[in-house]
Amino acid sequence: MTAVAEQLSPQINSFAEILDSLCNYVGEEVSEVNKILLARMDNKIRLIPKLAGHLINAGGKRIRPMLTVATAKLCEYEGMRHIPLAACIEFIHTATLLHDDVVDESNMRRGLVAANTLWGNKASVLVGDFLFSRAFELMVDDESIAIMRILSKAASTIIEGEILQLVTSNDTTTTEEDYLEVVHAKTAELFAASCHISGILANKNKEYCQALRTYGTNLGIAFQLTDDILDYTANQLTFGKTVGDDFREGKITLPVVLAFNQGAEAERAFWKRTMNELDQKEGDLAHANELFNRYNIFDQIIEKARYYAETASKAIKVFPHSPVQQILIGLADNCIYRAS
Amino acid sequence: MTAVAEQLSPQINSFAEILDSLCNYVGEEVSEVNKILLARMDNKIRLIPKLAGHLINAGGKRIRPMLTVATAKLCEYEGMRHIPLAACIEFIHTATLLHDDVVDESNMRRGLVAANTLWGNKASVLVGDFLFSRAFELMVDDESIAIMRILSKAASTIIEGEILQLVTSNDTTTTEEDYLEVVHAKTAELFAASCHISGILANKNKEYCQALRTYGTNLGIAFQLTDDILDYTANQLTFGKTVGDDFREGKITLPVVLAFNQGAEAERAFWKRTMNELDQKEGDLAHANELFNRYNIFDQIIEKARYYAETASKAIKVFPHSPVQQILIGLADNCIYRAS
Repeated sequence: MTAVAEQLSPQINSFAEILDSLCNYVGEEVSEVNKILLARMDNKIRLIPKLAGHLINAGGKRIRPMLTVATAKLCEYEGMRHIPLAACIEFIHTATLLHDDVVDESNMRRGLVAANTLWGNKASVLVGDFLFSRAFELMVDDESIAIMRILSKAASTIIEGEILQLVTSNDTTTTEEDYLEVVHAKTAELFAASCHISGILANKNKEYCQALRTYGTNLGIAFQLTDDILDYTANQLTFGKTVGDDFREGKITLPVVLAFNQGAEAERAFWKRTMNELDQKEGDLAHANELFNRYNIFDQIIEKARYYAETASKAIKVFPHSPVQQILIGLADNCIYRAS
Repeated sequence: MTAVAEQLSPQINSFAEILDSLCNYVGEEVSEVNKILLARMDNKIRLIPKLAGHLINAGGKRIRPMLTVATAKLCEYEGMRHIPLAACIEFIHTATLLHDDVVDESNMRRGLVAANTLWGNKASVLVGDFLFSRAFELMVDDESIAIMRILSKAASTIIEGEILQLVTSNDTTTTEEDYLEVVHAKTAELFAASCHISGILANKNKEYCQALRTYGTNLGIAFQLTDDILDYTANQLTFGKTVGDDFREGKITLPVVLAFNQGAEAERAFWKRTMNELDQKEGDLAHANELFNRYNIFDQIIEKARYYAETASKAIKVFPHSPVQQILIGLADNCIYRAS
């Protein structure tokens, strides 16, 4: 563990605690979201609920539906439209995971064997499409053009992000700017949409809607930066994915971008061999972690993530004080200390 | 060539002629549809227009956009909303082709090497997703909830059809009923939607909208039945796909369903070996064609297709007489004689 991470380790539990408070606060409504997920993925073709359920029931944190429910409370929205819309968002997210599994050949997702290794790529692509189509049916059922615009734009942005990541993959000359563009598109946009739609549902003005987007966007980036560190440092037992997956796939995340830029010539040769050429030997992952420690890469990234987290919590302060506001601020402030 | 097909061969050209008249009649508007397709698939990530363009520019017949434009004329619709909606439908169709290529490992589509063998499965899945998301943006831009319902339902039905086909693939016990369910979902539903939306745009009543759906559904089935014959009999030079693809993939289409049901025990063993077990030797495709000829399978299927084609042209007769009505009737009446 690096200096900064060590210094902050007593706070690591506080993220779990914040997540618990959030779950307590929104749990009942998230259960309603789960019911819709189960009902809408049911089908007489049993492969569909089986394969989709493999991922949907695998105990994801439901962070996006929780954000929709929590921000709906923040906006004092009193209807029920946020429930199916939160399900729509979780379907979009799950569909992208299924398609990501197909394409990246990763063999673990949320601690279980990835769907494509169990049922084949063909089934994963099609069931991903099925979930996308269910997501669009849910948003059409809501009948708000403004919300459909936000969600269909988010879906297309995520996909552009996936493609951008594909064309920059295995490329160690990827810049921090390129990387952040991918994170904005792949992660931050759907976090932003999850929060933004609550503002629309509650008829909030542009300033509040923008504050919700800023919160979601920056929380999403902070989450992703932390995720990219965890892919190298997490405890395999509690982490939902295989530690070292990004390295083995040659996925260029911020740790590699920074280590490559700050490294000496011989180190760059190491990154080129392992990431560009995917020529990896035993001990390479450990050596990558040594290089990250040599330059305090994780500490540098935690500092960057802290900036995004602070931007998020600052944005949400325009709303009147409330318990849910405190939880959302706490979520942002503590997300950089999460352990899984 | 079998007896019935031979007898009808002088009419084979008439489908090409009808298609020409249709093209002349709707060509200008279909060019506008093409402009939207090109504009919406453009992207600074050059892989997207390159890969999508590979399929979009490959000279598909644009039969679905042509149906939308022609039925809009049939309904005397005078606006321009049908143009982007026709582009939306073509994007849905192209996205499903891209995902179908990934999963079926077919190596030709519209006479060119399939996108996935050029750019890999990963890119084909994601660019397919990109086209789906563009389709949804186009339908949201139109702002009609009724049309969004029709199109999002069509998209989800196609995907269910693809999955149903997957779970029944390589299964020689597939019944004619199972097969028709797949065709209804995979092909007929989007043909029906292509026609139905014109009725909505022109504010036609339920009876006329239903007539448009009946036309599209039955034309789609007649098209697919003919397509399944062509996969065994077409001229490789003019046919847009590899002849024999369905056989090599063990795809259970109506010729196989009928030949299996009507065949003797030894013949069933042949179908099980080649289709279920995909254990294929040189000469097997030729033997399959011999078996089809032995039972006049293609003639049986042309008779079935004729029934659907007649149902289609009958449905459209509720509209007032017009040149476009004659073309649409001719399209249905002749689609069973098409050669590619």
